[in-house]
Amino acid sequence: MSSTVITGIGELITNDPDHELATGQLGLINNAAMIVDDEQIAWVGPAGRAPEADRRIDVQGRCVLPAFVDSHTHLVYAGDRSAEFAARMAGTPYDGGGIAVTVEATRSASDDELRSLLAQRIRELRAQGTGTVEIKSGYGLSVADEQRMLRIAAEFTAETTFLGGHVVPPEARGDRSAYVELVTGEMLAACAPYARWIDVFCEPHSPHAFTEDQSRRILQAGIAAGLLPRVHGNQLGPGPGVRLAVELGAASVDHCTYLTRADIDLLAGSDTVATLLPGVEFCTHSPYPDAGALIDAGVTIALATDCNPGTCNSSSMPLMIALAVRECGLTTEQAIRAATVGAAKSVRREDIGRVGVGCRPELIVLDAPSYLHLPYRVGVPVTHPIKIT
Amino acid sequence: MSSTVITGIGELITNDPDHELATGQLGLINNAAMIVDDEQIAWVGPAGRAPEADRRIDVQGRCVLPAFVDSHTHLVYAGDRSAEFAARMAGTPYDGGGIAVTVEATRSASDDELRSLLAQRIRELRAQGTGTVEIKSGYGLSVADEQRMLRIAAEFTAETTFLGGHVVPPEARGDRSAYVELVTGEMLAACAPYARWIDVFCEPHSPHAFTEDQSRRILQAGIAAGLLPRVHGNQLGPGPGVRLAVELGAASVDHCTYLTRADIDLLAGSDTVATLLPGVEFCTHSPYPDAGALIDAGVTIALATDCNPGTCNSSSMPLMIALAVRECGLTTEQAIRAATVGAAKSVRREDIGRVGVGCRPELIVLDAPSYLHLPYRVGVPVTHPIKIT
Ligand SMILES: [Zn+2]
Ligand SMILES: [Zn+2]
Repeated sequence: MSSTVITGIGELITNDPDHELATGQLGLINNAAMIVDDEQIAWVGPAGRAPEADRRIDVQGRCVLPAFVDSHTHLVYAGDRSAEFAARMAGTPYDGGGIAVTVEATRSASDDELRSLLAQRIRELRAQGTGTVEIKSGYGLSVADEQRMLRIAAEFTAETTFLGGHVVPPEARGDRSAYVELVTGEMLAACAPYARWIDVFCEPHSPHAFTEDQSRRILQAGIAAGLLPRVHGNQLGPGPGVRLAVELGAASVDHCTYLTRADIDLLAGSDTVATLLPGVEFCTHSPYPDAGALIDAGVTIALATDCNPGTCNSSSMPLMIALAVRECGLTTEQAIRAATVGAAKSVRREDIGRVGVGCRPELIVLDAPSYLHLPYRVGVPVTHPIKIT
Repeated sequence: MSSTVITGIGELITNDPDHELATGQLGLINNAAMIVDDEQIAWVGPAGRAPEADRRIDVQGRCVLPAFVDSHTHLVYAGDRSAEFAARMAGTPYDGGGIAVTVEATRSASDDELRSLLAQRIRELRAQGTGTVEIKSGYGLSVADEQRMLRIAAEFTAETTFLGGHVVPPEARGDRSAYVELVTGEMLAACAPYARWIDVFCEPHSPHAFTEDQSRRILQAGIAAGLLPRVHGNQLGPGPGVRLAVELGAASVDHCTYLTRADIDLLAGSDTVATLLPGVEFCTHSPYPDAGALIDAGVTIALATDCNPGTCNSSSMPLMIALAVRECGLTTEQAIRAATVGAAKSVRREDIGRVGVGCRPELIVLDAPSYLHLPYRVGVPVTHPIKIT
């Protein structure tokens, strides 16, 4: 295993405010260097004191930070819904009904097609600065199709999520409780070996999603099968999603577009991360969540893309940072923490989203001297992965 | 001179609704091909009838469109104002005062530094799909510095704009009319040989910009020196910019954030294009212009980035299209027309922004089958220039 020294780091974001050289909530170190090998970061310190290594990468004064953690995506799918996006921009509201279009196309696609589409999407998001990515099922909605989505997703990431409880599929609409039986029974048994997480679209404002009671049953069955819970909640209106997530000790409740004061207080008293997905508000013409209120209450925030063919077909974490700053009331520092160490917490990982000894060597470099350029250069592809090997 | 056939075009946007094969306002042709040489497009037609050529590019079913025309940029500058952006996101309003920071850094930079920074910025915007770019002076604000900005800009584009009337520089604040004398006299004489356009920041809501009378004097002097007029107007509040632009037959009035009914009627009865710069509204936390009202009145709209170190440091035309659709009320088709043929009209060019015989071969290909993906994949770099030679 060979070692690499990364030098010339004008600004290094460690996300470790306790590092002896670091300042601010981003744990920023100026004029830094680090040593990495294939599996971990081995040393972080001032440029002048870097040990020798087999290989050298000089980033010439640029800013280096931990790769983004995209903790919420739906990347295994086939089909195209760009016309639905255009209709929504012209005023058609979103209620989750379009998911069935993707389900049909995904069921019809072969394993090889799905694998090749997913591989292309992963290449695309890595080029934009994402390291670890979470991937959900939820466009199969049959035992065999959910299982193969997760099997294919697991070829690309350890953060796989069983989302049989995405919507009730068209063929099951006559008997919704029978579908919940399937999800918590045979489908869960087939999917659990390929999943780390269990998730559900808990949304009383969508006729296609699940009630609080159904959502609880689905999550509890997943927990009993050894999966860790996370929740789609409070997207289309106030609802039980946050309450349920906190009740079950979920790692994260995602969307949080409509929160009550009680929701915020519950989150503040819990270990559940509030994951904001501002690309969804952009692409569904919805109001943005109030991140400032969450920060003030001491809630940990994550930012993710929700990249999916319906409500946000963007895999750009830099765009999410810019939207969080422009629209949700986060500072640049808070938004960058949310997209890295906050998102890592939302998938209960301590080895990503930070730059410290023992962390995975998932690093990006900006075409810029400072992290402030991330939202400042909105839309411009200024993030690049640092290829260690 | 060698010829190239471009085949496999799933969707070709010509912007020529009158082409016999075309449909819709984008002049869309399915399953198209074209022949180009170094200087022009020589043939456009159905894939099955493409003539032979020396070279072949197969775009494999993707969407091809004319390169974007970025008709409003301030790309010749030195220095960094990312901290000002962060402060603005935290609530500090914009009044044009930060321009002086860039003036100081730009005056201090050598020709070689400015040239190398500009070259890098042009590479960056071309990679994002822009073909022709307009570049303004306006960070020199002395005879020698304005002239060298334009001399350097003219090495990269024919669309150069003299903007000595950007703001009154710090050293001239005691005698604003003397500065207008300088701009209309010695500075104009030194700059006119390197400029095609004359522009002014006509903005009563900024203490740094120019009144209606001063703006008129500056534009009229430019016209007398053989330059064509364009105007920065109606950015920070309702004002005389549109009225002045129409009065002087300006090709374009840019920003148009605050328009009255009378402004819209004036534009509708004129040949002046309304150039929208929604990246500025994004980056200054301002309300977006109402493009729908302009479209309804029959006004031609252009979209541009205004890429500059203060109010919008984005050179992404795809982002501007997405913002125009999300925030300004344009359809995807209208936004794409504004970013191509509309922007071409705003610089009085008929050989760019369209795909037709005799047009310049400035073409882009999307990593997508349809133009609908441009806003649908917001933030993702899906545009790529087609390299002809
Ligand atoms: Zn989701
Ligand atoms: Zn401007």
